[in-house]
Amino acid sequence: MVFLSVLTPVLAVILCLVIGFMLLKPREAASMSTGKPASKSENFRPWVDQDLQDDTEITAREDEVGDWMDSSEEDLPHVPYSQKRYSEEMMLQRSQDFYTLMNDRRSVRFISPDPVPREVINNVIRTAGTCTAPSGAHTEPWTFIVVSDPEMKHQIRLIVEEEEEVNYRHRMGEKWVHDLAKLRTNWIKEYLDVAPFLVLIFKQTHGILPNGKKKTHYYNEISVSISCGILLAALQNAGLVTVTTTPLNCGPQLRLLLRRPANEKLLMLLPVGYPASDATVPDLKRKPLDDIMVYI
Amino acid sequence: MVFLSVLTPVLAVILCLVIGFMLLKPREAASMSTGKPASKSENFRPWVDQDLQDDTEITAREDEVGDWMDSSEEDLPHVPYSQKRYSEEMMLQRSQDFYTLMNDRRSVRFISPDPVPREVINNVIRTAGTCTAPSGAHTEPWTFIVVSDPEMKHQIRLIVEEEEEVNYRHRMGEKWVHDLAKLRTNWIKEYLDVAPFLVLIFKQTHGILPNGKKKTHYYNEISVSISCGILLAALQNAGLVTVTTTPLNCGPQLRLLLRRPANEKLLMLLPVGYPASDATVPDLKRKPLDDIMVYI
Repeated sequence: MVFLSVLTPVLAVILCLVIGFMLLKPREAASMSTGKPASKSENFRPWVDQDLQDDTEITAREDEVGDWMDSSEEDLPHVPYSQKRYSEEMMLQRSQDFYTLMNDRRSVRFISPDPVPREVINNVIRTAGTCTAPSGAHTEPWTFIVVSDPEMKHQIRLIVEEEEEVNYRHRMGEKWVHDLAKLRTNWIKEYLDVAPFLVLIFKQTHGILPNGKKKTHYYNEISVSISCGILLAALQNAGLVTVTTTPLNCGPQLRLLLRRPANEKLLMLLPVGYPASDATVPDLKRKPLDDIMVYI
Repeated sequence: MVFLSVLTPVLAVILCLVIGFMLLKPREAASMSTGKPASKSENFRPWVDQDLQDDTEITAREDEVGDWMDSSEEDLPHVPYSQKRYSEEMMLQRSQDFYTLMNDRRSVRFISPDPVPREVINNVIRTAGTCTAPSGAHTEPWTFIVVSDPEMKHQIRLIVEEEEEVNYRHRMGEKWVHDLAKLRTNWIKEYLDVAPFLVLIFKQTHGILPNGKKKTHYYNEISVSISCGILLAALQNAGLVTVTTTPLNCGPQLRLLLRRPANEKLLMLLPVGYPASDATVPDLKRKPLDDIMVYI
């Protein structure tokens, strides 16, 4: 009896260790599987594209396919599609004209305070967002906030400048600090007060289904960036200028200021207007076509 | 003594539970901190934007600023910039016309084999890549591979279809497999043989400096996606169609097939041509302007 009562605690400890081990095991497995799927002895590669393993990686997940098509899209009836077919001369002329138009586009930081008709901005956003840009699974994962209210523009400026000053003063690497003296620009962003419109483009990282569950928006950043490209083309076509900015660390504050929901993340901020009469741009050289294109 | 020996296992169990709890605690803390960096007692937030912590996050690093400007750009002379200023009526008309043009754009999977003049493709790529798209720090981090060679197109098709078949057959979740029967599309991508041109858009994740060191291309995916948006506008303007595809798991194989260097990652593959005479598109509805735009 004494022998047994001495053994009992030892047995209890062993039992506890076994139970503890069993409790820990699934946690480890779970935490491993969040990083990379465990390699299985199957004859195909895992979902994640190894070649795209970087900070801007495309990670594929369940119910995602390469073609940007919605599964629900499949339930839709298909309708015939045709498009105006130009003569070859006409195509060539049109493509040349569009190149000429877009070739004048530059990132402009000196924006005139002259007012711009709101209906033009409507058309530009309509072009970029309601009809023309493709999106992964046709989720249309974008929200365009157009700010013309002077007080709100100023609030935005205060947030951006405060963060940018910290960026310049504290977060830049030594190399950058060394170069700071010769920099013409700094954290002062006058255009945020001056431009008649600020367009803040939010990506929706997920949507909300009717049953309240999350609906992941695959490729949302690529989709919104494509839409932004069409927006830039539409602005240029209307004779307006902008500069593509991605204000660092300002996203959460600007989201709260603009009362956007948590599933929306700020991707870009574009001040929009006419160029100022004394606007300048750096005398950049661009790569020639042969450097960026290969025919096979 | 008997009383004690009865109590001992109970004490041992309690002791084990306490130890087990203490072992579990730091693991949980560690797994939580991988999601978010620990808050520091500094008076500014760390580089990473907390609000952008997702798979498509913008991560800021040394020598990166919110404005898309190159430090070397600062050494460049500034030149005056002006742009054609249209009357308000003219702006409105132009923005309306561009909307009308782009409103006809759809993702089209049925592409005619009719040949397209190569010079039109040149102009389209020139528009998207050589002059008009902005890029983080003006790195122009894109390469456009234009494939018209039938044998090469077929090689691409074989790679894409092989991977897509695996995607459909093995990688899809159960939900997807369940829906497979009703799907109209599958892994067969006829357009890869049929379209007169395949445009493969590679993003350059970094460049090589003259001294052989890596030059990181910040925002390369956003930059290339913006350029792709302008490409889509240029194609539409010329009367051509495409479908935006991101072939899963095919990047590395296609990169090797096309002999692209390791710093280039496939972002998109666009088959380009006229729409087939019997082309159809799903009868999609788009969000109205008020759903995607907010005026303040």
